[in-house]
Amino acid sequence: MRVYDIILKKRGGGELSGEEIAYLIAGYSAGTIPDYQLSAFAMALYFQGMSRREILDLTLALANSGETVSLSGIPGVIVDKHSTGGVGDSTTLILVPLVASAGVPVAKMSGRGLGHTGGTLDKLAAIPGFRSDLSPEELVGAVQKTGAAVVGQTENLVPADKKLYALRDLTATVDSIPLIASSIMSKKLAAGAAALLLDVKTGDGAFMNELEDAFTLAETMVQIGLGAGRETAAVITGMEQPLGRAVGNALEVAEAILTLQGQGPTDLTALALYLGGWMLFLAGKVSHPQEGRTLLEKKIAGGAALEKFREMIRTQHGNAAVVDDPGLLPRAAVVVPVRAARSGYICRLGAGQVGRAAMLLGAGRLNAGDSIDLAAGVTLAKKIGDPVETGEVLAYLHLNGTSEKEPALTAGRLLLEAYEIGAAPVVEPELLRGYVDRGGRHHI
Amino acid sequence: MRVYDIILKKRGGGELSGEEIAYLIAGYSAGTIPDYQLSAFAMALYFQGMSRREILDLTLALANSGETVSLSGIPGVIVDKHSTGGVGDSTTLILVPLVASAGVPVAKMSGRGLGHTGGTLDKLAAIPGFRSDLSPEELVGAVQKTGAAVVGQTENLVPADKKLYALRDLTATVDSIPLIASSIMSKKLAAGAAALLLDVKTGDGAFMNELEDAFTLAETMVQIGLGAGRETAAVITGMEQPLGRAVGNALEVAEAILTLQGQGPTDLTALALYLGGWMLFLAGKVSHPQEGRTLLEKKIAGGAALEKFREMIRTQHGNAAVVDDPGLLPRAAVVVPVRAARSGYICRLGAGQVGRAAMLLGAGRLNAGDSIDLAAGVTLAKKIGDPVETGEVLAYLHLNGTSEKEPALTAGRLLLEAYEIGAAPVVEPELLRGYVDRGGRHHI
Repeated sequence: MRVYDIILKKRGGGELSGEEIAYLIAGYSAGTIPDYQLSAFAMALYFQGMSRREILDLTLALANSGETVSLSGIPGVIVDKHSTGGVGDSTTLILVPLVASAGVPVAKMSGRGLGHTGGTLDKLAAIPGFRSDLSPEELVGAVQKTGAAVVGQTENLVPADKKLYALRDLTATVDSIPLIASSIMSKKLAAGAAALLLDVKTGDGAFMNELEDAFTLAETMVQIGLGAGRETAAVITGMEQPLGRAVGNALEVAEAILTLQGQGPTDLTALALYLGGWMLFLAGKVSHPQEGRTLLEKKIAGGAALEKFREMIRTQHGNAAVVDDPGLLPRAAVVVPVRAARSGYICRLGAGQVGRAAMLLGAGRLNAGDSIDLAAGVTLAKKIGDPVETGEVLAYLHLNGTSEKEPALTAGRLLLEAYEIGAAPVVEPELLRGYVDRGGRHHI
Repeated sequence: MRVYDIILKKRGGGELSGEEIAYLIAGYSAGTIPDYQLSAFAMALYFQGMSRREILDLTLALANSGETVSLSGIPGVIVDKHSTGGVGDSTTLILVPLVASAGVPVAKMSGRGLGHTGGTLDKLAAIPGFRSDLSPEELVGAVQKTGAAVVGQTENLVPADKKLYALRDLTATVDSIPLIASSIMSKKLAAGAAALLLDVKTGDGAFMNELEDAFTLAETMVQIGLGAGRETAAVITGMEQPLGRAVGNALEVAEAILTLQGQGPTDLTALALYLGGWMLFLAGKVSHPQEGRTLLEKKIAGGAALEKFREMIRTQHGNAAVVDDPGLLPRAAVVVPVRAARSGYICRLGAGQVGRAAMLLGAGRLNAGDSIDLAAGVTLAKKIGDPVETGEVLAYLHLNGTSEKEPALTAGRLLLEAYEIGAAPVVEPELLRGYVDRGGRHHI
C-alpha cells in the first residue's frame, strides 16, 4: 500500500477501503507518514468528500489510535453529551447533575478548548477546590458513588485526531464535514459512553452558520454513532444570540446553579430540559424525550437536581457551598455597564461579537497555554425582543484591574455593535430547530 | 500576509495577487513556509486552477528563486527548445547542430532526468570525452565559437521549482496544468534564451495522453513565454509510437548522426526539420517556419549540419570521430531479436511499453542517482503500418552481460505486448497535430 496511491484515489473521487484508511491514520500517528502527505490528502478529501462507510472507518481509526476508556465497571447505560459549541452555553454544567438526579449515570470527559470562554473544565475550575484531573479509576469510582462526574481528557485519548486537527488548522482543511464529524465522534467513541446526544448549533455564533450544514453534520455524526453501536441522536439548536445571560466561566457556573434552582433564564432552562429529555430517552430511562423532560422538571422543582450538583462537587473535592452562595465564586473587580444609544426593540444580538468581547476581557483563550481570567466575561441585560430606552443598560462587562484598557474598550465597542435596535417589536428567534435520530432528519 | 489565508483563498477559487504568490514561493524556498502548507496549497490549486496572470506570476517567482543565466554576451537571437518528453526522442541532439548550422545560435541547458532513457546529457555522455559540465562562462565561450552548446543545468537554477516538484511527486499533485507549465517555463526563463520552441507530445507514450490536454498545456506555456517577453511557440506532435527506431542513449546518438547525414528514419527527420523550421522562424532568421525547413534541408544535404555537430563535440572536448564511425560509441554485448508470432500488419506499437522495456534493460533511471547503461536499449525493426511475416524480427533488445536475466525477459515480453499485429493494412499515425503561436491554437 502506498500513501501516494491513497491520495490519488481520493483526489479522483474514489472510495477508500477500510484498510487504506487504517493504514493512513496508523502511519500518520506513528510518524512514518509525513505531514505533507496528510495535508494534501485532507485537501483532496475537502473537495471530494467521503462515503458514510469511509467516515465511519476514519472515525474508528482515529478512536483506536490511543487509549480508550472502559466504563463497564459502572452499572446502567451511561450517557454522554456533546455540543458543537456556542456562546454562553453552560448546558453541560446543568445537564450532568440534572440527568444523574433522574437515575441515569453521566461520565463526561471534557477538553479545555479554545474559544470565547474556556471549556467545561475551565468553568468548573471556578469552583474553589474542584478537581477534574481524576484518573480513569477515580472517574469510575465517582460515577459509582454519585452517578455524575466531569473529568479532563486523558493525555493519550485519540492522539491521531489531535495531530490531524493541528495540521488541518494550519492548512485550511478544518471546515470539511467528514473531518469535523470524525474528529468529534472519535473522541466520543474513545470516551466510552454507550449513549450519546449531540447538540449541533446553527446561526451567527455557531460553527455551522447554515441550517442545512448543521443538519448534514448532525446526520453524519448520528450515522457514525449508530454505526459504531452507540445509541446516538442529535438536536439542532439555534445560536442566533448567546444562550442565557452569562458569557464567562464563573458567570456561567452561577447561571447554571440558578437554572438548577429553577430560576434560570427561559431559553437556557428550556434547552437544558430538552437535551436532558433526549439523554434520558437514549439511555432507555423513558420511552419518549418529552416524558424525560417532564421527569427532569420535577427533579428541578423538588431540589434533587441541585442536591446532585452539591454531591458531585463534593466528590470531586470542590466547595459545595457555592451552590448556596455564588458569592464564593471568583468575582471581577470592575463591572462596566454598556448603555443603549437609542430606544426601540432589540432585533439582533450577534452571538459571535458577544463571544469575542468576552474573550478580549480574558474569559477565553486564543492559543493553548493562554491563561484565563475565571471572573471575566459579559452579562446580558437585554436580549432579542426586549424593549429598551436610550441610556438603559444593555449589558455589563466584567473585568479585573489587570485587564488592559485597550481590549476593554474594544470589548465595549464590540458589544455595542452586537446589539441592533429597531423601531418595531421583534419575535424571539426559535431555539429548537430540529433533530436527527435513527429515522433521519426532522424539522421542528 | 498569512499562508493560511492564501491556501483558503485558492481553495475557494479566488485569484491570488502577485504579492501572495511571490510570498508563498519565496517563503517555501527559504524554508520558512513548511512542506505541509505547500502540499495543501498544491492540492487546492489542482482542483481550482489558476488564471493566466497567476500562472505567469508563479512562473516568474519560481524562475527568480535562484541564479538566472545571462546570454547577453552572445550576439544574435538565441533559441532554446523543450520537449515534454517522449520515447526515442533524440531531436535535441539533431536540432542543436542543425539550427546552429543555419546561423542561429543555440545554448541549451539540459537535465539528466528520469524516464525510459536518460536525458539529453546522458545521451551525449555516450560520446567519449564529451563534457557537459561547462561553467556559464565556458558555455558563452562555446556558443560564441561554434554557435551551439549543450550543458547541464547549474546547481542553483530554479531551486524553488526543484523543491516544489519533489513535493508534488509525493503528494499526487504532479498532473496539474498550471503546475506543469510553470515548472517547465521557470527553467526555460531562468536559462536565458530569447526565443523558445516547445514540443508538446500527445498519445500513448506522452505525459499528456489527450490531444485537448496537450493543446491546453501548450497554450498555457506559450502565454507564459509571451508574457515574460520571450518569443514563444509550441507544436503538438504525436507519440503513438516511439520516434525513429532507436530507444537508448548511445543508440539514439547513432540515429541522430544518421539523421544529420540525411539517412535518418522518415518520422524523426520530418519532426527535426519541422521543429528546426519553427526555431529559425522564432529567432527571426526566416519569415515562415516552412522557409526555415527548406533552409535546414539544404544544411543537411550539403553536410553543414553534420560538420556543425563535429565542431560542437570538439569544442565540448568529445571525440568527433564518432560522427564518421558510430562504432566508437558504447555497444551492448548482446543483441536479442524479438520475433513476430503471426503475420499481418503492425497496427499498434505502444510507446509506453517500448519505453518501459528500454528502462528495464538499463537505458533509463527510475530514481535520481540510479546508474545508466549507455549501450542498452531497444531498436525497432518494424513500426506501425509495416507488413510482417511470422518469425520475422520486430525489434532487438540491446543488453550487457551485467543485465539481470529477469528484467531482460520482462523487457522482451513487454516489447511483444507493445506490438499489435492485425490482418488489414494500417495508415501510419499523423506525427504533426497542431501548433500554438501568438494567434492561438491551430489544428493541422
